[in-house]
Amino acid sequence: MRADVLSAVGELLLAEGLTDFTIERVARLSGVSKTTIYKWWPSRGALALDGYFHAVEPTLAFPDTGDIRADLTSQLHAFGRLVGETPAGRLLAELIGAAQTDAELAAAYRALYSFERRHIAVARMQRAQASGQLRADVDPQVVVDQLWGAVYHRLLIPDEPITTTFIDALLDNLLDGILTVGH
Amino acid sequence: MRADVLSAVGELLLAEGLTDFTIERVARLSGVSKTTIYKWWPSRGALALDGYFHAVEPTLAFPDTGDIRADLTSQLHAFGRLVGETPAGRLLAELIGAAQTDAELAAAYRALYSFERRHIAVARMQRAQASGQLRADVDPQVVVDQLWGAVYHRLLIPDEPITTTFIDALLDNLLDGILTVGH
Repeated sequence: MRADVLSAVGELLLAEGLTDFTIERVARLSGVSKTTIYKWWPSRGALALDGYFHAVEPTLAFPDTGDIRADLTSQLHAFGRLVGETPAGRLLAELIGAAQTDAELAAAYRALYSFERRHIAVARMQRAQASGQLRADVDPQVVVDQLWGAVYHRLLIPDEPITTTFIDALLDNLLDGILTVGH
Repeated sequence: MRADVLSAVGELLLAEGLTDFTIERVARLSGVSKTTIYKWWPSRGALALDGYFHAVEPTLAFPDTGDIRADLTSQLHAFGRLVGETPAGRLLAELIGAAQTDAELAAAYRALYSFERRHIAVARMQRAQASGQLRADVDPQVVVDQLWGAVYHRLLIPDEPITTTFIDALLDNLLDGILTVGH
């Protein structure tokens, strides 16, 4: 039943975004009562985040082929397409936007989504440090901000587009460095 | 008179944030009539952004000593302190948050603030490319997302703190690259 609710939430959010998302509609679509839903999720925002996380988890899976450049590239391409080309981008932007003046939603966002996404990325980078591909003195948490965080920056302040060229440039800049040799 | 309004707005915003910011209060503090203020700025959001931009412009000035690493470091330290340690951080976060569901505010944010900040940073990096310090094939717009955008990421999704250590790591990662030699 919990899984039924989460799939109904994920489908609804990815099709329509957050505007008309209500616990009433989730109850109708999933066949689970509102009382039960409220027992499991304290608020509409927490339910939305949990459903979203489960819906995108397969898309955002982190490969481990042993080649960190290849694995970061394929994960970031998938992430870029998700936020740049599907309703997930608008949904994430609205959730993050609302979280700026809603402390409960902000806490739920971190607990149900961003903390776990950071953890998955950091774990993959730590294995790349153990295998000698990434410099040992690099803090993988900072890399999260310079790859995924850079994409969120374009999502939330859309001065420039989220394209495959952009994603590839993020990786080239950060993996190889932007200074000329000798500087 | 226009300058009086902008200083009143800047002071008010940096002291108190956006919550109690009204055109009435700005009119009272600046001694300029509401009618005149509305003639110059179409909305509360546009006025807030213009005042904010003018208030922080000296703090965010971009040095050009001829050494791109030193200049990025001092500008990003100032930016990190501004958003991490003053009410400017909360204010920016609330403006960006509200812009996610307010198309007019989003357009004003880009027109009055982020477009100009991007332009200033990109111009400095283009001079570093001309002098041979930054690789010529790097798109400076992408670097903006990986330095300032990475700070906005921690501001808007505060899983990790904005510290001087973080700012220095952003620069080291991006300037020198995060791969080990030979990878």
